[in-house]
Amino acid sequence: MSEPGFTDLGWARPDTAREARLGLPEVVYGPGKSVEQIVGIVATLLAENTGPVLVTRVEPDAAAAVLARVPGGVHDPEARLLVWRRAAAVGFALAVVAAGTADGAVAAEAAAVATAVGLTVTRISDVGVAGVHRLLAEQERLAAADAVICIAGMEGALPSVVGGLVGCPVIAVPTSVGYGATFEGVTALLAMLSSCATGIVVVNIDSGFSAAMAAFRMAHT
Amino acid sequence: MSEPGFTDLGWARPDTAREARLGLPEVVYGPGKSVEQIVGIVATLLAENTGPVLVTRVEPDAAAAVLARVPGGVHDPEARLLVWRRAAAVGFALAVVAAGTADGAVAAEAAAVATAVGLTVTRISDVGVAGVHRLLAEQERLAAADAVICIAGMEGALPSVVGGLVGCPVIAVPTSVGYGATFEGVTALLAMLSSCATGIVVVNIDSGFSAAMAAFRMAHT
Amino acid sequence: MSEPGFTDLGWARPDTAREARLGLPEVVYGPGKSVEQIVGIVATLLAENTGPVLVTRVEPDAAAAVLARVPGGVHDPEARLLVWRRAAAVGFALAVVAAGTADGAVAAEAAAVATAVGLTVTRISDVGVAGVHRLLAEQERLAAADAVICIAGMEGALPSVVGGLVGCPVIAVPTSVGYGATFEGVTALLAMLSSCATGIVVVNIDSGFSAAMAAFRMAHT
Amino acid sequence: MSEPGFTDLGWARPDTAREARLGLPEVVYGPGKSVEQIVGIVATLLAENTGPVLVTRVEPDAAAAVLARVPGGVHDPEARLLVWRRAAAVGFALAVVAAGTADGAVAAEAAAVATAVGLTVTRISDVGVAGVHRLLAEQERLAAADAVICIAGMEGALPSVVGGLVGCPVIAVPTSVGYGATFEGVTALLAMLSSCATGIVVVNIDSGFSAAMAAFRMAHT
Amino acid sequence: MSEPGFTDLGWARPDTAREARLGLPEVVYGPGKSVEQIVGIVATLLAENTGPVLVTRVEPDAAAAVLARVPGGVHDPEARLLVWRRAAAVGFALAVVAAGTADGAVAAEAAAVATAVGLTVTRISDVGVAGVHRLLAEQERLAAADAVICIAGMEGALPSVVGGLVGCPVIAVPTSVGYGATFEGVTALLAMLSSCATGIVVVNIDSGFSAAMAAFRMAHT
Amino acid sequence: MSEPGFTDLGWARPDTAREARLGLPEVVYGPGKSVEQIVGIVATLLAENTGPVLVTRVEPDAAAAVLARVPGGVHDPEARLLVWRRAAAVGFALAVVAAGTADGAVAAEAAAVATAVGLTVTRISDVGVAGVHRLLAEQERLAAADAVICIAGMEGALPSVVGGLVGCPVIAVPTSVGYGATFEGVTALLAMLSSCATGIVVVNIDSGFSAAMAAFRMAHT
Amino acid sequence: MSEPGFTDLGWARPDTAREARLGLPEVVYGPGKSVEQIVGIVATLLAENTGPVLVTRVEPDAAAAVLARVPGGVHDPEARLLVWRRAAAVGFALAVVAAGTADGAVAAEAAAVATAVGLTVTRISDVGVAGVHRLLAEQERLAAADAVICIAGMEGALPSVVGGLVGCPVIAVPTSVGYGATFEGVTALLAMLSSCATGIVVVNIDSGFSAAMAAFRMAHT
Amino acid sequence: MSEPGFTDLGWARPDTAREARLGLPEVVYGPGKSVEQIVGIVATLLAENTGPVLVTRVEPDAAAAVLARVPGGVHDPEARLLVWRRAAAVGFALAVVAAGTADGAVAAEAAAVATAVGLTVTRISDVGVAGVHRLLAEQERLAAADAVICIAGMEGALPSVVGGLVGCPVIAVPTSVGYGATFEGVTALLAMLSSCATGIVVVNIDSGFSAAMAAFRMAHT
Repeated sequence: MSEPGFTDLGWARPDTAREARLGLPEVVYGPGKSVEQIVGIVATLLAENTGPVLVTRVEPDAAAAVLARVPGGVHDPEARLLVWRRAAAVGFALAVVAAGTADGAVAAEAAAVATAVGLTVTRISDVGVAGVHRLLAEQERLAAADAVICIAGMEGALPSVVGGLVGCPVIAVPTSVGYGATFEGVTALLAMLSSCATGIVVVNIDSGFSAAMAAFRMAHT
Repeated sequence: MSEPGFTDLGWARPDTAREARLGLPEVVYGPGKSVEQIVGIVATLLAENTGPVLVTRVEPDAAAAVLARVPGGVHDPEARLLVWRRAAAVGFALAVVAAGTADGAVAAEAAAVATAVGLTVTRISDVGVAGVHRLLAEQERLAAADAVICIAGMEGALPSVVGGLVGCPVIAVPTSVGYGATFEGVTALLAMLSSCATGIVVVNIDSGFSAAMAAFRMAHT
Repeated sequence: MSEPGFTDLGWARPDTAREARLGLPEVVYGPGKSVEQIVGIVATLLAENTGPVLVTRVEPDAAAAVLARVPGGVHDPEARLLVWRRAAAVGFALAVVAAGTADGAVAAEAAAVATAVGLTVTRISDVGVAGVHRLLAEQERLAAADAVICIAGMEGALPSVVGGLVGCPVIAVPTSVGYGATFEGVTALLAMLSSCATGIVVVNIDSGFSAAMAAFRMAHT
Repeated sequence: MSEPGFTDLGWARPDTAREARLGLPEVVYGPGKSVEQIVGIVATLLAENTGPVLVTRVEPDAAAAVLARVPGGVHDPEARLLVWRRAAAVGFALAVVAAGTADGAVAAEAAAVATAVGLTVTRISDVGVAGVHRLLAEQERLAAADAVICIAGMEGALPSVVGGLVGCPVIAVPTSVGYGATFEGVTALLAMLSSCATGIVVVNIDSGFSAAMAAFRMAHT
Repeated sequence: MSEPGFTDLGWARPDTAREARLGLPEVVYGPGKSVEQIVGIVATLLAENTGPVLVTRVEPDAAAAVLARVPGGVHDPEARLLVWRRAAAVGFALAVVAAGTADGAVAAEAAAVATAVGLTVTRISDVGVAGVHRLLAEQERLAAADAVICIAGMEGALPSVVGGLVGCPVIAVPTSVGYGATFEGVTALLAMLSSCATGIVVVNIDSGFSAAMAAFRMAHT
Repeated sequence: MSEPGFTDLGWARPDTAREARLGLPEVVYGPGKSVEQIVGIVATLLAENTGPVLVTRVEPDAAAAVLARVPGGVHDPEARLLVWRRAAAVGFALAVVAAGTADGAVAAEAAAVATAVGLTVTRISDVGVAGVHRLLAEQERLAAADAVICIAGMEGALPSVVGGLVGCPVIAVPTSVGYGATFEGVTALLAMLSSCATGIVVVNIDSGFSAAMAAFRMAHT
Repeated sequence: MSEPGFTDLGWARPDTAREARLGLPEVVYGPGKSVEQIVGIVATLLAENTGPVLVTRVEPDAAAAVLARVPGGVHDPEARLLVWRRAAAVGFALAVVAAGTADGAVAAEAAAVATAVGLTVTRISDVGVAGVHRLLAEQERLAAADAVICIAGMEGALPSVVGGLVGCPVIAVPTSVGYGATFEGVTALLAMLSSCATGIVVVNIDSGFSAAMAAFRMAHT
Repeated sequence: MSEPGFTDLGWARPDTAREARLGLPEVVYGPGKSVEQIVGIVATLLAENTGPVLVTRVEPDAAAAVLARVPGGVHDPEARLLVWRRAAAVGFALAVVAAGTADGAVAAEAAAVATAVGLTVTRISDVGVAGVHRLLAEQERLAAADAVICIAGMEGALPSVVGGLVGCPVIAVPTSVGYGATFEGVTALLAMLSSCATGIVVVNIDSGFSAAMAAFRMAHT
């Protein structure tokens, strides 16, 4: 049943008006949804909207099953992302910077989502602050960005240093990399919220997706 | 002693190169600094930089003592902000939205800082989600904003609703308003980080300043 | 051995007087009990009481084994509920409202328990606050309810909005849906306890059962 | 400025439609509001609504200043409550039960708010579970209630025992009474949420107000 | 190498003087030890001491392997306890009281350890406070005890009620039974430490062993 | 009104049967009670019971006001304790051992309460584990005790060492002495609950009173 | 009474053998001690030992009162330290590095304690990571140190960067500078424990004293 | 691509200048890295540096796969450590002291890392404070050490006692040994940070590696 602004599938109500309000169709959060449910929601969004349709955190088996029934999409296994109708580039340069190689999956999600919604992504990896010259060697690429996504686990110090080097928006993503006193990302989260660099903003732990969507909002303005 | 990029006052090193890197002189965090120290740092920044100089969280007595020695500044007592050389407007529309009247001091700080660095601020007050029609009546003003700062204590739900209404950046500020299970802003902080609205970004508890600086970064891009 | 008010099975003492005191036989909490133990307790309650007998959180295999020895019951696999002697409807309209599709299992438990004890249940699904028009479209069904159970994970904002729309009791159930800063339902729990909507009451995380029993108490008055 | 559903005072928007939606005018939360602000909001609510108007957590001095400008109200200093146009009794019997004498202020607030909105209150004091015969001696009064508010600090065990004695709704209020491992009410809050008695509902720490409003919702059905 | 007071096995130093100081040989904590290690330590303790030797938290396979090499011991699988040279009864009556059937494993450990070191144990099961008459029916057995071990999960209220009924020592054991806001026993632990009944003492979560050893110390006096 | 087992003063119900059940009249917790309330409860307990009557945590002014109206009591200002009808010695030797001089107030409360209820107290002070020879020099006095109360703040290690030296009951009391990572006694509390010495029991932070009452229960057996 | 290894003052036992074991007399922790007590302990240590005697966290009034009775000492008000018999320099170069000016009091304590026990201190201030060039400008002084104490509040990132620049020991001190999500130093503490720089060690929040003593141990080797 | 100070492998940037700055090549953290990645980084470090190359927390299968491609290394399965080019002894005596046998894996990692970087290690095992004579019997070996690593789970008391016996640096390592209130090492961590022994330093939970690296920094001075 289609009502103004959403389609009532009984067990779900895809918000078909979101594209008009926010500039992007509703993004589907994959976990906890069956293939059947993902198919139903994606089909609705493809039919009722015109922009890119994304499903996050989908493993290869589920992705293949969905794609068999809703062709035309692409699955990025490292980013765990399904995308139909990838957007054209809007001319917004996004740097995705990660402190360590273990932060790679989160960086991959951020980069893939950002690309799918039309941002132009540059990736800089393994520039943790214990060898700060590695980051300083990248100042030129950082200065060219319209926004920077900073990904770090452990003590989460990277955004504080980056935030002192560039004036553009810095979106900090804590990751659950580490053990013991890192508390699965909580330490990095708190550190980023407490940053001495001004104007740093923070999203949820391991959420490369949220960071990319925040960048999309900035590009959208 | 002036070195490349900072001035060494012995007890402090104002980062005089920050204006060149970030587009704004270093902002002085007031708490824990004596009048003497504030005067010294502000004088250095005014001399070495050309943009606006701000001191945050300054009470009236300290403000008067500082202004007596470094004239030309203005103190906003509600925002607890000292400003010299307020910036010209850069044409970036910022909406500062607060859930309740008790969130007023945080909203005042956000608005005053944003104005001082050149943003154009609109304030919307007392639109908590328990009477959601009050927020819906403001959709037009929200749609006109380049970015929205959403301020809320208690359960911190406001950014989730606002984030579903507008496509521009939404910067969420949790406040320490409430008692018991609000844990002085921690509940609102966690709720905002967990928002079901995509791309919401979060700053530290009660930090109207951080939210304004985040908006400045966005305007700067 | 039967004593006044309970039956001593040695390893358990079913509270056979609970039906007289509370209007409903003791409900059996399934986890940690063997089939043997469930059978013993259910048989006692069926013999000593006359109302509905429920066992919560029972998986299909255990359910089948119990039903093979105590016939006449029904297992609802989604709600993980075993019921014997379902109650007749008492004329109390309960709306079970869930923010997202991932909250479905908790909603199913709430609905199944409520139905088993005689309430009349209406379900409203996927009305999260990031697309608040979906909820506003359901105001009529909400207004017809004698009580509303509001189920939400992540930031747990739904009960605040619902509580501002209806005057009947609103029972909030936080769920463990989400990751990172949702802390397996703790964030939603705290947010619901901190709600700016007045008179919202809260039960334990993921406890559709507790919410339904709270509604039963209200219907019982 | 009066808009449909609220009055925009600039710094506040009293939700004048709340009475129509919920059966009671918006209640004013006192802390953080100036006398000026309370006067403005109360005057609006008295003018635009017809039911009782309440301001919570008001100390005597502020209460006197407000009453001097908005006559006709009454201040209850123990409950810290200001009331105009107390409601007529609606025939709903509410028992307010407190574990210890130190829980008295919370019980007073619950009782005063409930009375102001039309409930008929009975108070039972000092029936902590370490002398459980004191509670058992009150079973008759408990059985006569349409709902019970159970107030306890320390280990918060009272609602579990009461919930096993009566079938009507039990609204548990944790208090900050105690020291050390009571963590200012957190222990009692968690204990009440974890109660082995079924269908207990919980409100915020020290919030006699929330408990009374929850009872009002039940009476309203 | 045997030194005064301990035997140095290289990887372990069984404290062979503990029996002389405390009246009982060192008890071996099983987890994290190989069969080889348990055998070595037990053999040392049997050789150097004369009292009962216990190994806690041993699963059946490991127990069988140890007993094959150090005969004469007995394994209690429910209590997960290995015992050699069980002590003669010392005439100390211990009641082991558990709130629910799910607390059975902890109660079994407490009872088995206590019995092994010479206490005389009585068990009372499933007397949770939501049906307080079940506990009141056992007052005679409780009054006959020299000490009571009170085991409860969820809100951990049982020791508060028992502590108000008997004057002998009450040793409270929180268990990890429950979900959500029980936080794997933390809620019960805090509640027991905050008990309004005077003189209740508390041991670690799920530690039937610690409670039994505390009772042994009391019997020893 | 006197009912079986308690006296209903309206605002309080002294549990006059507690002396018969537990061997000691109800102890009055001072904080949050007015002089009027303390007088009323103490007078009732003195009239209805025959044993010692205690009020804890009373400051000098309140103590003087109470004693002016209920003569015959004694106030110990260091222990903050009011006592009427101190008990005769029952022949139970209690050692009160404190790690540092800053733990003195807690030790004073433990000693004063224990003495008031008939135990014979020995005090050992400033035997923190960083100079363990100071404790080892006291082994004789420790060995003579029927029970030991171990009081420590900071890392709370004292009970672990004492528990390895003596076989009698060891009651651990964490104190709020320390700063930073001591978290006002929480660290010591957790350390004591986690002690590698077997059979240590723990009471609430800073509660010399609870420890003394636990010892009284042991003496009572 | 003087016993081997300590002097029993009744209320305290100064550990007079500590100087022989550790190379430094016991240091007196000031808070919670009366002037009388400080005088007694200091006099004992001066008489029984030959090295420097220190009392930490003493405010000016108490310091003056103590010095009037035990002459020869010096009070440093910024460091809140009392020192008698300052040690001769042992030739160990210690750098005390602080992230912000608000960390000054902690740095002052670290420097004063270190100097008193014979270390040679260099101070570097206001080198927070948001302007990392300020720290890089000090690499020469850092490289000359035998150990570095790194003091930082907020996100506590400084030790991670310093630890990547120098190979000598880095002792991290979290401070309670900041608000909201800094949780009075807990965030910095956790960040320092989680540092990606290897071999960083951490002491308690705000404990300049502990850091200096750790450096003393290193110099002592 | 080799740049000054690091080699850019694209997905990683081994910090090849670290050996020059810190005296030891970058150590590779194994978890989350593929065999391919470990091989690439190790090969780079072996080529660009001359000192020992270590990979931590590598399980046997991965170790074998790496060694097949980068011969010349050695795997220690208990320590989970891979080492190429073990350093010659530098004449620094390190004692690795563990409270219990269950702390063995952490002690093994500390000892293996320390040995690989040139320290001379002595191990002392199973000297928990509940039998403190076992530790006192080792005072001679402790006194001979240049630094002591103290490893303990549960209440983490060992460093406090050791710190009072020796004057050299004491590096405390909390372990996750224990259950319930030990909170997987958090209790031991907090206890060590709160130690009453002066100058104790602390590293992350279970991090034998960090402790060894801290000792290396001390030896390096």
